[in-house]
Order: sequence, then structure tokens, then C-alpha cells
Amino acid sequence: MTDTTSESANSRTTSRRSLLAMGGAGLVVGAAAAGGAVAVTRSGDEPQPVADTGGAVAFHGAHQAGIATGVQDRLHFAAFDVKTDDRDEFVQLLKDWTKAAARMTEGRVIGDGAYGGLPEAPPDDTGEALGLKPSRLTLTIGFGPSLFEKFGLADKRPEALVDLPKFPGDNLDKARSDGDLCIQACADDPQIAVHAIRNLARIGFGKVAVRWSQLGFGKTSSTTPDAQTPRNLFGFKDGTRNIAGTEREALDQHVWAGAGDGPAWMTGGSYLVARRIRMNIETWDRTSLSEQEDVFGRDKGEGAPVGKAKEHDAVFLKALKPTSHVRLAHPDSNGGIRILRRGYSFTDGTDGLGRLDAGLFFLAYQRDVRKGFIPLQRSLSRHDALNEYIQHVGSAVFAVPPGVRDSGDWWGRALFSKEA
Amino acid sequence: MTDTTSESANSRTTSRRSLLAMGGAGLVVGAAAAGGAVAVTRSGDEPQPVADTGGAVAFHGAHQAGIATGVQDRLHFAAFDVKTDDRDEFVQLLKDWTKAAARMTEGRVIGDGAYGGLPEAPPDDTGEALGLKPSRLTLTIGFGPSLFEKFGLADKRPEALVDLPKFPGDNLDKARSDGDLCIQACADDPQIAVHAIRNLARIGFGKVAVRWSQLGFGKTSSTTPDAQTPRNLFGFKDGTRNIAGTEREALDQHVWAGAGDGPAWMTGGSYLVARRIRMNIETWDRTSLSEQEDVFGRDKGEGAPVGKAKEHDAVFLKALKPTSHVRLAHPDSNGGIRILRRGYSFTDGTDGLGRLDAGLFFLAYQRDVRKGFIPLQRSLSRHDALNEYIQHVGSAVFAVPPGVRDSGDWWGRALFSKEA
Ligand code: HEM
Ligand code: HEM
Repeated sequence: MTDTTSESANSRTTSRRSLLAMGGAGLVVGAAAAGGAVAVTRSGDEPQPVADTGGAVAFHGAHQAGIATGVQDRLHFAAFDVKTDDRDEFVQLLKDWTKAAARMTEGRVIGDGAYGGLPEAPPDDTGEALGLKPSRLTLTIGFGPSLFEKFGLADKRPEALVDLPKFPGDNLDKARSDGDLCIQACADDPQIAVHAIRNLARIGFGKVAVRWSQLGFGKTSSTTPDAQTPRNLFGFKDGTRNIAGTEREALDQHVWAGAGDGPAWMTGGSYLVARRIRMNIETWDRTSLSEQEDVFGRDKGEGAPVGKAKEHDAVFLKALKPTSHVRLAHPDSNGGIRILRRGYSFTDGTDGLGRLDAGLFFLAYQRDVRKGFIPLQRSLSRHDALNEYIQHVGSAVFAVPPGVRDSGDWWGRALFSKEA
Repeated sequence: MTDTTSESANSRTTSRRSLLAMGGAGLVVGAAAAGGAVAVTRSGDEPQPVADTGGAVAFHGAHQAGIATGVQDRLHFAAFDVKTDDRDEFVQLLKDWTKAAARMTEGRVIGDGAYGGLPEAPPDDTGEALGLKPSRLTLTIGFGPSLFEKFGLADKRPEALVDLPKFPGDNLDKARSDGDLCIQACADDPQIAVHAIRNLARIGFGKVAVRWSQLGFGKTSSTTPDAQTPRNLFGFKDGTRNIAGTEREALDQHVWAGAGDGPAWMTGGSYLVARRIRMNIETWDRTSLSEQEDVFGRDKGEGAPVGKAKEHDAVFLKALKPTSHVRLAHPDSNGGIRILRRGYSFTDGTDGLGRLDAGLFFLAYQRDVRKGFIPLQRSLSRHDALNEYIQHVGSAVFAVPPGVRDSGDWWGRALFSKEA
């Protein structure tokens, strides 16, 4: 049921906003009205926000949106386990998901008519995003190592998708780790991100089940160079030295899997490491300002590296303590390693001891996990002064396939095709 | 240490924004600069947002902000238990909290200088709100029934602050219920709400401990009549018929404790019922549209009552099923009962069964719990068709004192004074 007609030209499409204007009458809208709300053009390469559609980010492109595209304010991340052993059924789910994902990123309801359904049936769309703007929603899929043990995919597993070793200090909760696949939903409105994951989970009912999920309320990095750098829960600017979405060369060198890197189906994709890092807020808050600044090797107000005046001044590594986070994580200490960080702060209530269950949901994209996160974290887990205040409690790794090219393409097509 | 100088006139004050402009140099700013950022004037009665200070809501007034003031997008709610039995120490904490709360709602750092501290000491402010706008932050304190068993307050407990009875279907988790006191932090930016609760918890270290806390990501009600009504996680508009912040008479009749109602210290205050209501998203999503609309007695798209065309059309009760939520909750079915709803949607990851742990964190303000929530919930818990899809899993009730009058006043002053 691969649908090759362009979604944008489909006159039976109901936009969330035009539906509302009609008072929920459930009529189909004309091509002109629909076109107004869904005029998200496919960009040549990188998906880019299109301002006049209320902040829609193009879904189709060479790379999946949600990696090099501008970081949104909120996150809902879900890891799923596959429950079906029927390959065709799973492939159909990937097609259905792709279609729904494209619609949602454009701010349209899933299905036709009002919530895509008849009164006697459950609506195709759960409805809580009706009347809201697309809010720069991006949906990014990834495939975990365990997926390759299913559906005869064993020889398709990229070598770059290694299982992570156990690092010193790791205290991983199985219930918050791993997964056959993941979907990262980012949007400026949390209701939009939550709506997206929920509807994909609903569409997957019986075929996949949510293994764990994570809500992130504050971005901790920026991929747009001129934006104000956000602060993490330790009060420091986070994301100062990150790979910007505009740095083509750095993206090709450090983020996108290249043509010769591994299986052809991953060309233009990336590898995602997700770590749930608990931050011991209460201990940190009783630490002196100078100790805090020593830990990072940057000052708290401006975010300037030790001995420098401005946030974006070059780091002079020798001025920083050897155990400082920035010195250890800097490319010059690691043979040039760079990763694209796209994490979010989280606060999940309180633990049994009256302490905030808060921290960083660390998300990093890279061309090869063996040459990105693993060597970096080997060094950090051993020497970083920050370790006194944090603990890694969840972990997962995923192969993130390239972008969906057009409305005839779908998430994972190359992986599941006979040739690739 | 009651500080009677006006905070706004205090030239030693550092605003979060001017601090940042100075590159975190930690200098104190001049009165003019500080005044620019903190020009939040005390309103005669109701605190109101002051547009030109980046969305600051006045902290001082006859009533606490966060009740009748406009509903913000995000919530961080914390219930605390008191750990000290020293009355003076607790009173000092209330004073310190009040001062910090006033500062934070104005977008200023706590303490003097950069994060209020010297390099050798832990900063007075944790810093992650630096550079952010006030975002309409409101901080609202409430006192739970168990507080009145402490500090010789027994005879000060208002009769209107009753313990809630057990309702049919209640499945309450003790770890998410009750508390000696609560602080409701609402803001348009979650980082601001989280920062506020965290800093108050930090200030209270050793004297109080967080018992439970709840993050809310989407408002489910509106107290501003002309705003677009938000949707809850069942996809329905929620808050259509609520008490608006502009309805003076309704507020006096249904929300504010009046002069003759109970103890004098509560005049101008209100009573808060908090219920964590789990919504069974997966079951709901498999329910037909017509069943969903029957459950509420309103249509899903527009939110119009059965038989009517528009959201704000008057409800004709007899057209609604007797078990519909709106028919049962309507004042005409309950001898005129009205409450002010100010709840938030929540999503706290996934339960052990792969289902979203999501729902409504229901917050309702009323003049008397015995004449508001209790009779309403008695009826709803027995007859509401909605009960098939929800479960009440947490519960708490608080006496919310009147507003802090000026910078010499503090949270709970009247309660702790000898006369009241
Ligand atoms: C809770 C845990 C963490 C916190 C609070 C944290 C915080 C920070 C901060 C404040 C900076 C400086 C500003 C910037 O350049 O962005 C930074 C830089 C950096 N961090 Fe982390 N980080 C954490 C974990 C990690 C982990 C697990 C990794 C990778 C294994 C990592 C890799 C980096 C890198 C590559 C940089 C840039 C270094 C440079 O080029 O100067 N961080 N981090
Ligand atoms: C998850 C649980 C709940 C959901 C999803 C929910 C949803 C709704 C919706 C969609 C409406 C109609 C729109 C409106 O007028 O706001 C409504 C109305 C109302 N609800 Fe609820 N509600 C819930 C729980 C409660 C509880 C526990 C109470 C009080 C005990 C309550 C009291 C009311 C009242 C007073 C109205 C207005 C009725 C009227 O005047 O027409 N609700 N609710």
C-alpha cells in the first residue's frame, strides 16, 4: 500500500487548523485550504523550518530531521520492543508510521475527516493536538542492536552499532535501557511531542510495545550557532561547543554515516547514544561556586573557558584542571573526536529519599559509536571531576537510518529491501 | 529579619538579565538598571501580569497569585513534610521563602551579586534560570491538615480544611498523597518552574523535605475567558465552563474564603484540592468517537454541548446522558456548586505494562472543600461514565492563605502571629 501520490496534493487531507475553523464538522477540505496549511516543501538536503506554516520542519530529505535541524524546546523519547514476528506486519507498521509521522510534522490530523473516522469507530487521531501549530515537530526513528536478531536482519547490522561496554560508575536500570527501536519526538510544545509518540504507540498496538520513555523539558544544547546557549540543571551553559547544523563539513566528518562506512542502507544516517544521567542536584547545590567552575573548566555566568573572557573564546586547555569536564571532553584531548549533542534536562518527580529525580537525558549523534561516544566516555568515566555529582542510570544505542526521500519512501525501506 | 525596605528600590539587587549583560562579572547593578527589570507594581487587589517586564506577575496583593491569575503553560508542584520542630526556625524559613519567591517571580537571582555569593561558598541561586524571562512565574503556598498538628497550631485549623473521605474507585498511593505544605509553581517556561521549586527546596534543606512532586506539561483549563480552550489528553477541550479570573462575584462566592467563613488568618485565602488522576489512554484510544462524546456530553472538535453548535453555548442538561461528565459536574445538577479548576496534564514515562503513565493533575480552588470538591466528587465517583477510563491515584488538600501584602509581610504571617 505504498502511496505514491504527494500528500501535499491530496485534497482529502484535513488540516488540524482548518478542521477547527469548521467547528469540527468533519468535512473534507478543498485543496487550496489544505495546501495553505501543509506547504512544507521538500528541501534539497537538510530539512529546514518553514516559517509560514507555523513552524513546520520538512519531514522528507536526505537525512532525518531531528539531528542537524534546530533544537526544539521539548522532548518525548520512546523505546519500543517488537511484539510481532511477522516481517510483513512489521514492514506495514513502518509504512503506516511514516505516513502518520509526515502528517503530524505538518500539523495535520492522522486519517481522513474529523480525527479520521466515523462516529462508530475509534478516531484515527487522538485529538489533543487539534488547533495547535506544528511547533517544529520532528520525529526520528532508530533501530537498536536487538532488532537485528529478528526478521533475518543479522547480516544487516552495521559494525558501527556496537553494544556499549560497561563504563566505571555505570549503574544502569534495565527498565530504562535498550530497546528494539526508538522514536525521538522533539517540538516546541510538549503537547505536540507527547501527542506524536502516543499516536505512534497506538498505531503500533499489538505489534510493538513501549519499553521505556522519557520526557525532556529543557534543551541542553543548541545546533544553531547564534542562539542563546541554554543552561543545564547545574546552572551552566551547555552546548557552547557543539556541532552546528550549518557546519556541513563537520556533519559529514563526524555525524553522517558515509558511503564507504558500512552497509549501504545506513548511508546518510547516524548513530545515536542515549544515556539517562541522574544529576545529584542537592549535593551540587551545596558546592562552592569555585569548585563548580573547576569541575567544568568554565565560569558560571558567561560560560567562558578558564582564563578567557567570553563564552565562545577558544579554550586554552592547559589553563583547565586535568580533571575538568571540558578539558577531558575537548577534541584536542581525544584525537579530534566530535559528537553532536542534542540532550534534554528532565525532572521526574522525587525519589524515595526526598531528592529530585532530575538530570540530563543525554542524546549524542555520531558517525560511528566506536569512534565517538565510547572513547570519549572511557576517558570521562575515569577522570571527570563531574562524576562525583552524576550517575549514568540508563543507556541505549540505535542506528538512525537516512531520511525518507519522498511520500513513496518509508522508515527503514532500504534495510528491509532485498538488495541493500 | 523582616525586611521592610521595598525590594524594588533596593539598589543591591541583581536582576537575572542585567547580570547576564555584564558577562556574569558579579557586580551589583545600579538602581536604574535593577528598576528596569523589576518594575512590578503592587496591584490594588488581583496580581496581574505586567507586560513590559517580560511577563512578571505581581507577587504582592490581597490574594496569592496562581489562583485567579491567568493560567500558565507549565507546572511544578511539590508537597513538603516539615522536619524541624522548632517553631522559630520554621517561621524563619517561611520568611526566607517569601523573600526568595518574590525575587524569583520578578526574574531576579536569589541573594546578592552573581548567584548571590562568594567563590568559596555555594551560590545562593542555582543559576539555571539566568538569562530567562520571569515567564509569568507564580508561587502559591498551601498548608496541609497535618501541619496543624505541629507548632501548637491545632486550634487554628479551619473547619473548611477537612480530610477528604475515601471515594468509590479511589486507589490512592500514599507516596503521592498529603503533605504538611505545598508549593505550586506555574510558569510559561518549565525551566523557570523547576528552578523555583528546586531553590525553595534548597533553602528549606534540613527544615523541610520534598514528600512528592509533580510536573505538568499542558494546562487543562483557562481562567482567561477569551483564550483558546486547551485540550486534555482525551483530546477534549477542558476548561470551557470554569470560573474566570475576571469574574469578581463568582470568585468571592465560590473561591475566596470570606471574612465570616472561618479563622481570620484565612480571609482572602482559598482551599486547594489536588488529585493525581491517571487516564487510561490506551483504552480510551480504542473507544469510538460517539462513545467518547457521550462520556463528556460535548462534541470533540468544537466542544459544544450535545444539541448545541458552539463551545460556549449554554448546556441543555436534559439533552446529555445522565452519566455524562458535564451533566453530573454542572452547577445545576449540584445545587450551584462551582470550583476553579487549574489542572495540568502529565506524562511520567511508562508503567511496568508498557502503558503511558499519563493523566490529569487536577487542581481545584474553592471557598470550602465541604461545599466544593467533596459533594461534586461524591456524585462523580458514583455515576460518571468517565470512571471507566480514569483512576484517582493521589490526593491532597491544603489551606491556601491570602496574599502577601508587601515586602514586610510573609507567607503564613497571620497564621503564626499570636492574635489570629
Ligand atoms: C550530566 C552530565 C553532563 C553535563 C552536566 C555536561 C555539561 C557540559 C558542559 C556545561 C559543557 C561546556 C559547554 C559546552 O561546550 O557545551 C560540556 C561540554 C562537553 N561535553 Fe558534557 N556534560 C555531561 C555529560 C557528557 C557526556 C556523557 C559526554 C560524552 C561522553 C559529554 C561530552 C561533552 C563534549 C564533547 C563537550 C564539548 C567539549 C569542548 O569541545 O570544549 N558530556 N558538557
Ligand atoms: C481525568 C479526569 C477529568 C477529565 C478528563 C475532565 C474533563 C472535563 C471536560 C472535558 C469538561 C468539559 C469542558 C469544561 O467545561 O471544562 C469538564 C467539565 C467539568 N469538570 Fe471535569 N474532568 C475530570 C475530572 C473532574 C473532577 C475530578 C471534577 C470535580 C470533582 C471535575 C469537575 C468538572 C466541572 C465542575 C466541570 C464544568 C461543568 C459545567 O459547568 O458544565 N472534573 N471536565
